[in-house]
Amino acid sequence: MYTNIPSSNGDDTVRAMLWTDSGLQVLDQRRLPDEVVYETFDSAAGVAEAIRSMRVRGAPAIGIAAAYGVVLAARQRYAEVGVQWHESIREDIDILAASRPTAVNLFWALDKIQEGLRDVRRDPAQDALQLAKTIHQDDIDANRYMGELGAEILTKCEGVLTHCNTGSLATGGYGTALGVIRSATRQGLKRIFATETRPWQQGARLTVWELQQDSIAATLIADSAAASLMRSGAVQWVIVGADRITANGDVANKIGTYSLAVLARNHGVKFMVVAPTSTIDWSLINGEAIEIEQRAEEELLPAYYLNDQSCIDAWNPVFDMTPADLIDAIVTEKGVVHKPGDGGLESIR
Amino acid sequence: MYTNIPSSNGDDTVRAMLWTDSGLQVLDQRRLPDEVVYETFDSAAGVAEAIRSMRVRGAPAIGIAAAYGVVLAARQRYAEVGVQWHESIREDIDILAASRPTAVNLFWALDKIQEGLRDVRRDPAQDALQLAKTIHQDDIDANRYMGELGAEILTKCEGVLTHCNTGSLATGGYGTALGVIRSATRQGLKRIFATETRPWQQGARLTVWELQQDSIAATLIADSAAASLMRSGAVQWVIVGADRITANGDVANKIGTYSLAVLARNHGVKFMVVAPTSTIDWSLINGEAIEIEQRAEEELLPAYYLNDQSCIDAWNPVFDMTPADLIDAIVTEKGVVHKPGDGGLESIR
Repeated sequence: MYTNIPSSNGDDTVRAMLWTDSGLQVLDQRRLPDEVVYETFDSAAGVAEAIRSMRVRGAPAIGIAAAYGVVLAARQRYAEVGVQWHESIREDIDILAASRPTAVNLFWALDKIQEGLRDVRRDPAQDALQLAKTIHQDDIDANRYMGELGAEILTKCEGVLTHCNTGSLATGGYGTALGVIRSATRQGLKRIFATETRPWQQGARLTVWELQQDSIAATLIADSAAASLMRSGAVQWVIVGADRITANGDVANKIGTYSLAVLARNHGVKFMVVAPTSTIDWSLINGEAIEIEQRAEEELLPAYYLNDQSCIDAWNPVFDMTPADLIDAIVTEKGVVHKPGDGGLESIR
Repeated sequence: MYTNIPSSNGDDTVRAMLWTDSGLQVLDQRRLPDEVVYETFDSAAGVAEAIRSMRVRGAPAIGIAAAYGVVLAARQRYAEVGVQWHESIREDIDILAASRPTAVNLFWALDKIQEGLRDVRRDPAQDALQLAKTIHQDDIDANRYMGELGAEILTKCEGVLTHCNTGSLATGGYGTALGVIRSATRQGLKRIFATETRPWQQGARLTVWELQQDSIAATLIADSAAASLMRSGAVQWVIVGADRITANGDVANKIGTYSLAVLARNHGVKFMVVAPTSTIDWSLINGEAIEIEQRAEEELLPAYYLNDQSCIDAWNPVFDMTPADLIDAIVTEKGVVHKPGDGGLESIR
């Protein structure tokens, strides 16, 4: 019983997770596109493992999964200890919070659901489920609204390029950057290009997969072909998501985003970032303060080089930082900031 | 008996092919880095197949392999028809010429060896072998000379980034861009970065592999991390090869080269192209005239999308074109052209 699947008009049929009475069904994104496998997790620890193992990824999607994890914990703790559940659920919250320490949306969602349950004394399962569903639906609604806002900007745009996966798989549904592309497609956008997005190939494995499920045509390119694509005149906008945005409008996002921003500026191509305001870190003045996470060299290096005798290593930063000056528009659910390099994000603070 | 292995001072031990009395041993580059397998081809048709199947690749290496193919043909034809071999060898030359129609060096090498054998009436095997060895050794010598010329330019350069494979595997030995990097390493260059070079990963599979064989340390990066690398200040030069250079100094090379040139200019990083003058196509005024080859979408698209029902395709240009204005130096065996955007290649014509 997929009680929480939002209605879709056929252009957004994929969901990273589905709530059922027996637990949270999570689509194992590591196995896409070859296999579509939903696994059911019936405990908070299980949901935490689904996040940790990257079955579910994408900051908004992680937050929502954690909220459903609290529902499972609430149900179990009330069954075990009755009205003492407030005390015992803390352990579950900690496990969920530790599943992906850098994901801001995770803490936001956990705070929100804890806040909502603070005064509940009876069996919390139904209240928790309602809160989780609201977080989930609010995310989809925000994405749909950002989709419309972003699409309005894309006048006379025939082709766009996107990077990484920012779609239904990365969010509650519809997507951020990919949500704008969905909305623009209904309004006449003709060509969608997606980068492969090395090293994890989120573009090749996830973005074009979810577009195909909705019969939205798209063209995959190697990351290194983006400059030639821009030079060809086929795209007028690059549209990406964000992992963190600082107060001045600098954007940390998937490695390669900064490269696309520089190339776009050099080719007269516009650059749009789409992200909910929960992505904004007001405590940081600019992107220089963002520490860029380095990941394992195994993601890049063939196994041949992975031994002590090897003089070959890899440099594998996960994110890069795009200065606000290179961005033409940041689209949030609170409105659009044009040319954030001119005054930061003050207009939506 | 590897009679044609040039002496090495230990910094250039890999060879894409080795002549033996029983035929041409060709390193199957498709199986690197996991397996080092040399296969022996004892006929011109066999060598043509080795080229066609991409066991051997890289324009200079292809030309040299074809020359050895003519040696095998000469030996066989003389055994079959005696002094009539001039007539019957034409078929073999045609097969070799058809093995990779776009490789300019292939035709250049075939012309050169045919020219050298024109007046030979006796058993041509020894003359042909001497000609092929000379073509091979001349290529290595040219690469070593270009290596020195290029390294001289790299004063105060601590780190370089290279793209694709331009090393011993792509040439007779030593390499073009990678030859400059070998020479510069002896002169104190500290860091070598290599792109993965999607879709075939020539950087990950070939460039860092051949550097490792010579104990030259190098660091692999995702293609999309190049901009962040430049921003970090770790590299002062990008050094690449060329597939074709037009009279004005525009350069056609592996997809992603143009992207690196734009990014380099934006980060104050210098950009060097290293290629023998046989790469120059004097008949073309500029790079706009170069038709960019598109390759099969299977190189990018996961098998999941390869069916008639799929609305997902791929755009897979093999090369891109870098305007002369973005290039700081073109290094050839006839000398260095600084800032080719200012006057093309007239100085080395």
